[in-house]
Amino acid sequence: MTETRQPAIILAEPQLGENIGSTARAMLNFGLTELRIAAPRDGWPNPAAEPMSAGAFEAGVEVKVFDSVEAACADLGYLVAATARPRGMEKPVTNAAGAVDWLTGQERRTGVMFGNEAQGLSNDHVALCDAIMTYPVSKAFASLNLSQAVMVFAHAWGDAAGQGGRFEGRDAGVGETASRDELIGMFEHFEAELERAGYFYPPDKTPLMTRNLRNAFIRGQWTSQEVRTFRGAVKALAIGRGKARIKREE
Amino acid sequence: MTETRQPAIILAEPQLGENIGSTARAMLNFGLTELRIAAPRDGWPNPAAEPMSAGAFEAGVEVKVFDSVEAACADLGYLVAATARPRGMEKPVTNAAGAVDWLTGQERRTGVMFGNEAQGLSNDHVALCDAIMTYPVSKAFASLNLSQAVMVFAHAWGDAAGQGGRFEGRDAGVGETASRDELIGMFEHFEAELERAGYFYPPDKTPLMTRNLRNAFIRGQWTSQEVRTFRGAVKALAIGRGKARIKREE
Repeated sequence: MTETRQPAIILAEPQLGENIGSTARAMLNFGLTELRIAAPRDGWPNPAAEPMSAGAFEAGVEVKVFDSVEAACADLGYLVAATARPRGMEKPVTNAAGAVDWLTGQERRTGVMFGNEAQGLSNDHVALCDAIMTYPVSKAFASLNLSQAVMVFAHAWGDAAGQGGRFEGRDAGVGETASRDELIGMFEHFEAELERAGYFYPPDKTPLMTRNLRNAFIRGQWTSQEVRTFRGAVKALAIGRGKARIKREE
Repeated sequence: MTETRQPAIILAEPQLGENIGSTARAMLNFGLTELRIAAPRDGWPNPAAEPMSAGAFEAGVEVKVFDSVEAACADLGYLVAATARPRGMEKPVTNAAGAVDWLTGQERRTGVMFGNEAQGLSNDHVALCDAIMTYPVSKAFASLNLSQAVMVFAHAWGDAAGQGGRFEGRDAGVGETASRDELIGMFEHFEAELERAGYFYPPDKTPLMTRNLRNAFIRGQWTSQEVRTFRGAVKALAIGRGKARIKREE
């Protein structure tokens, strides 16, 4: 997918410079850099855009301004319209992940079109597009902020370019997961000190109590470092209150 | 999944009221209603929140304010930390879709924690959480606006609650797809008028030209209504310039 050319993001007749700025930021967060502004109400450049962009224009988002939506998509071969409302038009409809998939399947240059703050895309603008992208919004509260709508698409683009779909892993932590041997060593150390402290009572419950403790620790999938840290803690407790510190300072 | 209790969205020490307002809007766009604000810098209520909320507080988002992050998640059994940076902690990591999956698998009450505008979550706050959610951001421009970060999760939540994964369909259009019979009737009508107009030339190319035209129309997967509309258009053209209007007005 690294070969796929990015879609242009087309803002159709946007009103607020703030939203153009935060759109640029959202785009660049996921590596999208081609922003087309069609007939912006307040012209361009717009001083309200810069503070909301967090530097995205300097950091890589390229802006092109056009007199009309038609001009903004004149050179594009495949267009997706972002719209929350059904339009009674015969067009393929998909969600954000599906739109990314359809866009990456194109050999032609592509774009995704977002309407303005007040009305979204007009039916005439939707009619220019090949497909409709829609998000599963709450019907009772369906109006997304313009740059938030762009963010949902930008994230979907980045998500597909990255691992794609669901990703699971572990944070790069403090080291390797402990071996069973290290865990058993830790259990025996811990249990021996508990025994010396008189923790296990009544004696016939000892196997059950030991097993419960071991299960609780096992579940945490500790690393070797964590095992060593805990053994140090057990040792300090076993020495007795205040004595570990005294011992260190000797 | 409709049975699953929603996660609370926890903003840890947020700074700007505007971001709290747009977070509420983003949440409610996808049906999330439980917003917890932990130690907001500028107190609460914050007059800057309302204009950015688009009415989300009145429309359903309930806010609870807490003195600390610890208090804000005291009653929650499973917590996800949203963070762009690896933390060197041994925790499971996933993306937005994976986090939704993990959260919906819990029987306990859940929450998703987002850090503030300046630093994101502190390591101490991440340490309170069971898992890490991270987005595949561009390394060169990794800082998301706070409410945009919430929006990515809210959309993922809504996406899973809706159809889940990739969804494809068609807009509810102007009617049923035309039968092959209707299409053939349209082709024959169109071709007959083209023949009468002297379009097919040279005559031996007629089969090829006809086939090319039919293929172009077939690709559009027209509806019955579209077939009728086009046949009307062909009829009007065949009558001759201006004459269809004259005929209608008679």
